[in-house]
Amino acid sequence: MPNQVPTSASSAANDQLCINTLRTLAMDAVQKANSGHPGTPMALAPVGYTLWSRFLRYHPEHPDWPNRDRFVLSAGHASMLLYGLLHLAGVEEIDADGTKTGQPAISLDDIKQFRQMDSKTPGHPEYRYTTGVETTTGPLGQGCANSVGMAMAQRWLGSRFNRDDLKLFDYNVYVICGDGDMMEGVSSEAASMAGHLKLSNLCWIYDNNTISIEGHTELAFSEDVMTRFKGYGWNTLHVTDANDTEALAKAFEQFSQTHDAPTLIMVDSVIGYGAPNKQNTAAAHGEALGDDEIKLAKKAYGWDENSSFSVPEGAAHHLRDTLLAHHGERYEQWERQLQTLSEREPELAEQLRRMRAGEMPAGWEAELEAFDTDAKGLATRAAGGKVLNAFAKKIPWLLGGSADLSPSTKTNLTFDGAGSFSATEPGGRNLHFGIREHAMGAIANGLALCYIRPYTSTFLVFSDYMKPPIRLAAIMELPVVFVFTHDSIGVGEDGPTHQPIEHLTQLRATPGLLTLRPGDANETTQAWKIALAQTDRPSCIVLSRQPMATLDRERFASAEGVARGGYVLADSDNPQVILIATGSEVGLAVEAYEQLQAQGIPARVVSLPCWELFEEQDAGYREHVLPAAVTARVAIEQAGPLGWDRYVGATGAKVVMNSFGASAPIDKLQAKFGFTVDNVVKLAKEQIG
Amino acid sequence: MPNQVPTSASSAANDQLCINTLRTLAMDAVQKANSGHPGTPMALAPVGYTLWSRFLRYHPEHPDWPNRDRFVLSAGHASMLLYGLLHLAGVEEIDADGTKTGQPAISLDDIKQFRQMDSKTPGHPEYRYTTGVETTTGPLGQGCANSVGMAMAQRWLGSRFNRDDLKLFDYNVYVICGDGDMMEGVSSEAASMAGHLKLSNLCWIYDNNTISIEGHTELAFSEDVMTRFKGYGWNTLHVTDANDTEALAKAFEQFSQTHDAPTLIMVDSVIGYGAPNKQNTAAAHGEALGDDEIKLAKKAYGWDENSSFSVPEGAAHHLRDTLLAHHGERYEQWERQLQTLSEREPELAEQLRRMRAGEMPAGWEAELEAFDTDAKGLATRAAGGKVLNAFAKKIPWLLGGSADLSPSTKTNLTFDGAGSFSATEPGGRNLHFGIREHAMGAIANGLALCYIRPYTSTFLVFSDYMKPPIRLAAIMELPVVFVFTHDSIGVGEDGPTHQPIEHLTQLRATPGLLTLRPGDANETTQAWKIALAQTDRPSCIVLSRQPMATLDRERFASAEGVARGGYVLADSDNPQVILIATGSEVGLAVEAYEQLQAQGIPARVVSLPCWELFEEQDAGYREHVLPAAVTARVAIEQAGPLGWDRYVGATGAKVVMNSFGASAPIDKLQAKFGFTVDNVVKLAKEQIG
Repeated sequence: MPNQVPTSASSAANDQLCINTLRTLAMDAVQKANSGHPGTPMALAPVGYTLWSRFLRYHPEHPDWPNRDRFVLSAGHASMLLYGLLHLAGVEEIDADGTKTGQPAISLDDIKQFRQMDSKTPGHPEYRYTTGVETTTGPLGQGCANSVGMAMAQRWLGSRFNRDDLKLFDYNVYVICGDGDMMEGVSSEAASMAGHLKLSNLCWIYDNNTISIEGHTELAFSEDVMTRFKGYGWNTLHVTDANDTEALAKAFEQFSQTHDAPTLIMVDSVIGYGAPNKQNTAAAHGEALGDDEIKLAKKAYGWDENSSFSVPEGAAHHLRDTLLAHHGERYEQWERQLQTLSEREPELAEQLRRMRAGEMPAGWEAELEAFDTDAKGLATRAAGGKVLNAFAKKIPWLLGGSADLSPSTKTNLTFDGAGSFSATEPGGRNLHFGIREHAMGAIANGLALCYIRPYTSTFLVFSDYMKPPIRLAAIMELPVVFVFTHDSIGVGEDGPTHQPIEHLTQLRATPGLLTLRPGDANETTQAWKIALAQTDRPSCIVLSRQPMATLDRERFASAEGVARGGYVLADSDNPQVILIATGSEVGLAVEAYEQLQAQGIPARVVSLPCWELFEEQDAGYREHVLPAAVTARVAIEQAGPLGWDRYVGATGAKVVMNSFGASAPIDKLQAKFGFTVDNVVKLAKEQIG
Repeated sequence: MPNQVPTSASSAANDQLCINTLRTLAMDAVQKANSGHPGTPMALAPVGYTLWSRFLRYHPEHPDWPNRDRFVLSAGHASMLLYGLLHLAGVEEIDADGTKTGQPAISLDDIKQFRQMDSKTPGHPEYRYTTGVETTTGPLGQGCANSVGMAMAQRWLGSRFNRDDLKLFDYNVYVICGDGDMMEGVSSEAASMAGHLKLSNLCWIYDNNTISIEGHTELAFSEDVMTRFKGYGWNTLHVTDANDTEALAKAFEQFSQTHDAPTLIMVDSVIGYGAPNKQNTAAAHGEALGDDEIKLAKKAYGWDENSSFSVPEGAAHHLRDTLLAHHGERYEQWERQLQTLSEREPELAEQLRRMRAGEMPAGWEAELEAFDTDAKGLATRAAGGKVLNAFAKKIPWLLGGSADLSPSTKTNLTFDGAGSFSATEPGGRNLHFGIREHAMGAIANGLALCYIRPYTSTFLVFSDYMKPPIRLAAIMELPVVFVFTHDSIGVGEDGPTHQPIEHLTQLRATPGLLTLRPGDANETTQAWKIALAQTDRPSCIVLSRQPMATLDRERFASAEGVARGGYVLADSDNPQVILIATGSEVGLAVEAYEQLQAQGIPARVVSLPCWELFEEQDAGYREHVLPAAVTARVAIEQAGPLGWDRYVGATGAKVVMNSFGASAPIDKLQAKFGFTVDNVVKLAKEQIG
């Protein structure tokens, strides 16, 4: 069914009023804040407006309609375009619990508070903070890559919940992006993936304004974007004038009629359109235009030059009325279809309810994967693969994959019916991201924004390639699970380029993110459980390449201690020294502990797999685990030293990596860098003094 | 002048022997190490060999010849291909000082030590570690982007040192890359830039083997790479059989005759070629083939099945002899041209000598930029711009630029003659990287590998986009300067997506990297001086968006203390509390200090702009700055807390960012997050107790 809704000649005047209202609100808001980006909203107001008024499936009373089209402003600095649209559309606010507040998503007062503390109109659009913002954007390229995840989610949701007579999920995803998005590598990765998956529900609108901050884009950017996207397998269209709303409508129509490829619409625009002295220059990009220039621009629009934050009568309700007229019945129909599903397949409908609410299936954490004591043990990546598969069987909307490393990261879902997600098999749960870590992270964020619980995986050292979306998952409070294996010099012969050193610290330094590095197979089970139990923060699960002993949990403490971030794993009466370790070094700490015991030296081993959770415990618990009176301490971790002072103090010893690693077999590396029982025992004794 | 060197029918048999020697050495080395990647060397031996024997300008006795062609193995996992070539070419070892050791770069024994501790044949090729390795590769896409920097360097060097009759720099850059390189976004950024700059001296050889780790590349990668590269403005060629050395030679010939665009040669290959059961499967990619399969492959090559590490007589000297025959005279001619330059323009020749030796011009640090005391002050980004320009005037080979943010990062070189680097003006010193942070970092590494002192700049939050090349600069010990401005919530209204929190910690966690966050304009001068004085490590200079007071250096200590990483800036007799700050918070610490003084409380302010340098000081100095006896301490930094425990201990106070920031004017943010004089004074008093 084509998406376009009919328009009438009589509303054309109001349409133009709305377009100019978007422009003038953007100018006025930036001017009042004396901060922001007016030029792109001025240029793209006709694009945004044409899309919203004639194509975007959106119900202003139900901005959480699961089957709404998604509008992503990847060019997040043009936030006033989005805020203006949300205002004119009369979108109604919904709080974090899904409850209507009775307030507009964006009032005119909110627009006057643009970029002010605690306003609903921050400098860049922030998901969860402002109703109608589908994803947090600003860091360029991220919105583009998020959109691929959103479009994949539609395919998967449709495959799962649609029936011949029920079309619960057939939404489209529209993205506004600029030169910066086109230049960033993450968009290239995402575009290649979208073409590969033939995501015909995805439409990127490329604002070709030829102006970047340093000047004309010709300074640095002269590629033929259309040809490049043809190479990715996209349908490419060109609109030569952003003000030609009929040409835009025709392009959107062509998009809706394309069923085998994503669509790129390149739109030539004039940044700061209408501002006679600044349009088409970098001066219109990122600062207030100034009162005089604003007056001249308003004059050019046929606007009252002396008005400010003016929303004319003809614009005040026009977009909302249009949306209600075109999508009201469609929304009701969707609700009826959902009701039909509930009656026919109540369990499936319950799944969808839980997905929308961010709840897990009942009993998802019953009968957790347990591993027997085993001195030889297994790599935590291997344990992780088993645990993931066990959970995934119980959580049908847990899906994910790897950046072409699943045989190494062990994250493939291997049970019957898991399948591989592809253009022809959109119900598959194994995602093949290709060697595109950055897009993988951002696509996972897009999936999470559409009810799915995604995981990703690659080697820990390549977390560097995907840090920007990890950060955005944390800012957006999305419970994405990022699996990172090959987490230390245990990588061995691949050498320093593949051996992470600083990465644990990097992840721990990121606010709002859990970093879990389990110390054996049973801690791995707990780590996955904790990560999946999160509703409002992402987790990194950091796993070893090499085998690790599965500890005897009758003799040592239960792995459930992981839930508190750190716990006493092995103890003695009146311990004289505390060995603190994470991940693959927990086993080393236990071995050292046993040798100290044999020598009559009472010691304690603390497993500290998640610093963030440990810091969240009350002071009493932390003191119980790490009593201040025991100052003799040895930290053991195959990662950089930064941060360990918190736990070992100024006088503690640290068996850590103070340099990059080296290419050699693992045993040689362990010896070279001091990760031996003898060295830990020696340092422990020195600590006792 | 075309690069191809003639070949004779008589040598064809030896050529094939060499090709098969490369293959069998790769198989044997991986088998012995029981670790590594045999399949790509087996597939690409004819490609590497044809290039080296007939096109690559290379003198085995002078692998540091400045005008040699660069051979970059971006597919670094195929390291045995490179090691094999270096061995067959008889390349002679040169140590870090540029002295010949009398040893081969790679002996047969070295190949037998593949992937062993301290061998010259680590898992991935490591620059500085093995003569003939032009750049450290392995993390995919990096070599591709490095190569763009190397090709740009040729343009710049040629513009500076060539004369009508002297062609000191006209080298080409060849890259071997694979599917992974094609998928990674950084290569896309770099390719777009190379096309824009019409780098016709750049040739990427794309190994289209259609096999990735998860299986056939069709799982995730179905784009039309050739069309995409046409979009970037590249010349694209296709060789349909990697074993067709004449077709390869023809393609290289076409490359050398193309003068207006870089060239992509897509070569269809069979991974693990010759291994009957494993070729063309992922099993040939990343593990030893096994003795049986190796025997079968050797049989297929017409090799002695029972031989191991065999280099037949016809292969032992053939490549070296070929290279000497073809490039010996050319090298001599180059040396004569250099001599001519020395006679005609001794100062210029001296510059080149210093560039090659990694030395600075004489007097480069005389008369440093000094800033007068100024309460209003200026942003350190603004001070940084002045300092950079002052240094750049004295250091002709200091060049760099920004990821489309130079008006904000203030890194433009503005003096006469600095100019912009472009396809038509290759002598320009301002580089326009476009909105491509990741490629920017990797291109800077490529420039640094070719005698140039590069700097880059963007906002600190976007250091996330370029972490992989920062890491590689540290691993390679390249003295690149990475400038990061807008270094805190001081960014203000742009909000949390643009406000770095964890980034200082990330950079500090990276081994071999200096992170400098100067506290006022004069500390900025020192920071730049320190960064430029480095010969074997990269530096990050972290600068503010907002103005900061320029401190009275008569009243307070000299900014030269930056050289020791941290120093006592302001003091009292018997201080009761130490305020420790970096960057924009140094001024806040001084204000709090003054208020404490006024209240009769003796305090000390320590400016700690570079943790790494401070840790390198002797214990006495560190104790002098931070006496253990003074435990009342307050750390002040607009960044995350991780790592500060080292300086304030378990009981110290931290005025830091424990969450993401927010979108609001700077003064509101400072108040919200506790960066006020009142708060610091309050905490200081609490610390004293």
